[in-house]
Amino acid sequence: MSTSVQQYTNNPRSGTLGRLEGLAWEQDLEPLAVRLGRVFDLVAGEMAELDADLTAIRPDDGPVQKSAVHLLDLAGKRLRPLCVALAARASGEAPDGVKDIAVAVELIHSATLLHDDVVDLGDARRGEPTARLVYGNAASIFAGDWLLIEAIRRVRRGARTRPDVLDAMLDAIDRMIGAESVQLEGRGRLVCDRDTYLAVVRGKTAALFAWALYAGGRVGGLPEAACKALEAYGSHLGVAFQVVDDILDLRGDEGTLGKGLHADLREGKATFPLIAALEARPSLRPAVESLSREDADLPDGFCDKVVASIADAGGFDAAEAFARAETDAALTALNAVPDGPAKSALATLCEAVLRRAH
Amino acid sequence: MSTSVQQYTNNPRSGTLGRLEGLAWEQDLEPLAVRLGRVFDLVAGEMAELDADLTAIRPDDGPVQKSAVHLLDLAGKRLRPLCVALAARASGEAPDGVKDIAVAVELIHSATLLHDDVVDLGDARRGEPTARLVYGNAASIFAGDWLLIEAIRRVRRGARTRPDVLDAMLDAIDRMIGAESVQLEGRGRLVCDRDTYLAVVRGKTAALFAWALYAGGRVGGLPEAACKALEAYGSHLGVAFQVVDDILDLRGDEGTLGKGLHADLREGKATFPLIAALEARPSLRPAVESLSREDADLPDGFCDKVVASIADAGGFDAAEAFARAETDAALTALNAVPDGPAKSALATLCEAVLRRAH
Repeated sequence: MSTSVQQYTNNPRSGTLGRLEGLAWEQDLEPLAVRLGRVFDLVAGEMAELDADLTAIRPDDGPVQKSAVHLLDLAGKRLRPLCVALAARASGEAPDGVKDIAVAVELIHSATLLHDDVVDLGDARRGEPTARLVYGNAASIFAGDWLLIEAIRRVRRGARTRPDVLDAMLDAIDRMIGAESVQLEGRGRLVCDRDTYLAVVRGKTAALFAWALYAGGRVGGLPEAACKALEAYGSHLGVAFQVVDDILDLRGDEGTLGKGLHADLREGKATFPLIAALEARPSLRPAVESLSREDADLPDGFCDKVVASIADAGGFDAAEAFARAETDAALTALNAVPDGPAKSALATLCEAVLRRAH
Repeated sequence: MSTSVQQYTNNPRSGTLGRLEGLAWEQDLEPLAVRLGRVFDLVAGEMAELDADLTAIRPDDGPVQKSAVHLLDLAGKRLRPLCVALAARASGEAPDGVKDIAVAVELIHSATLLHDDVVDLGDARRGEPTARLVYGNAASIFAGDWLLIEAIRRVRRGARTRPDVLDAMLDAIDRMIGAESVQLEGRGRLVCDRDTYLAVVRGKTAALFAWALYAGGRVGGLPEAACKALEAYGSHLGVAFQVVDDILDLRGDEGTLGKGLHADLREGKATFPLIAALEARPSLRPAVESLSREDADLPDGFCDKVVASIADAGGFDAAEAFARAETDAALTALNAVPDGPAKSALATLCEAVLRRAH
């Protein structure tokens, strides 16, 4: 590891942008790393405040409260709060209320992860056992409820003079739940059509990104058209992010992922590379389906073989092309956002999200 | 069954006050029945609107949405919305916004029941299989989330000019979750001290009653002191309601309960009659504890014997006395509420809640 990589991977930014930045250095993508460094510097104050605030969330000392902070302590990428901070900065200022909105989006994200892990019986997240394993399903359910309530309080405080920000947040959560419902309906069978996939991804992932960007723009005082453009940017970025996540589940690095590889495949979840591969080569279907059957007696290396077939059928190429088309659409949406360092930072974020796939 | 009883038990009020009213007639408590009839007449318009509104909640047709309305369709006592309507009426008017608050309190109540049933593996409620049995745990979790979001929307609409009503609601939900946490901590062992019991009941049951009354008073435009008095009334009524519920679990009528008898006892849950009985006769403890041990091989009729011992040790008498003390405190709180038919109705409600124990 070169000194410069060392310098970046050990730096105090690791909780937020550090991972992406470190990754960029490791891959010798110096220009992207430099640009990500600038993204961080731009909103360093906001992100430090966010970290301090999330760390300070220490409610009463019960199992529900411990579950609630379990995930917050395992700092993730904090990509959604970063989006809030950058969108607010697009106004050229660092307005009051940004921190509360940024905290809220991270709390909502954590709440959905807690409930998702109970529903999907998830065992690991961010390299650690899930809250439901440590404190139980019951505590995780109530902890998710609590985080939701706390997020609503934050938004009320941060956007006191702009009540539409809370309305938009409730709508976003509504869409997230709607997507969960669609996903539940398809449970137990591999639903491989793009429309259903996109409906789920737009609800489960993109809606919260879209709200983060919109809310940031609103508390930043940007005009409605710019806020709507930021919202569109967020939606496309969110879809791209999820498609890249799909790719990483199949061919990522287990250490970086923080959870087991091939989890989606073994759960019978339709992911973009899989859908594209099955479109190109329907004969793959029985092998894919056997992976999620609990009673299947599969030979060693069968899973790796299926992944190789997905690659061979062009699944990864198609997914990468789709993710790129989404980030292109995100960049186009930025046209309606005032020029400046925040806008450049949002463009850099698109590239960083795409790079994760490699 | 006499004609008058028939008339009351088959009347269209059955979804709301009908059950209590029917019960009063069956027990020949004509004066209470007549007074409950007056309670109903007073807010008949609001309650009819409530029913229509709850019936109209028909979101998209997925498992999450079906879970969400499953409970709403099995009309319960609708006691909490009734409290909202009566509190608002205490101002002498039927103000705008009452319906939204009344719907919201029923939605929050349903949301907590959905999550509770997942946590407690509840199988029956209101005489029907629980939503988690019909549509699955996952759908119930997300349905609870959805009901919470919808409740918040309603409160925003109904109390637009009084944002403290939503603040108070978020605080009430916070207390409900805190109580769940205390209860989870005590899981697996029979925690029989009154302080813990009361902390749980005040959070799980009384906090929402207190909010219903406070919010009703606020949208009714009552002065702050009267709203606080209504809140105190609601808190005491809620505790009394729960203590009576405890009694009914032990010696109620299975058909009326809508769920299995002795559920609390078999789950090792501390209830008021049990706590009082164990205070008076500590030697009962091993027998009580054996009821919640899954591996215990108990002779026929063992459970009934334990219930008889609880009665013998004065558990029911103590519980009834405690419930009465709470309704007395509720009535005292009413002193600060303007005189009128709504105040009389709230007093009648105290009596009706106590009568359920018989």
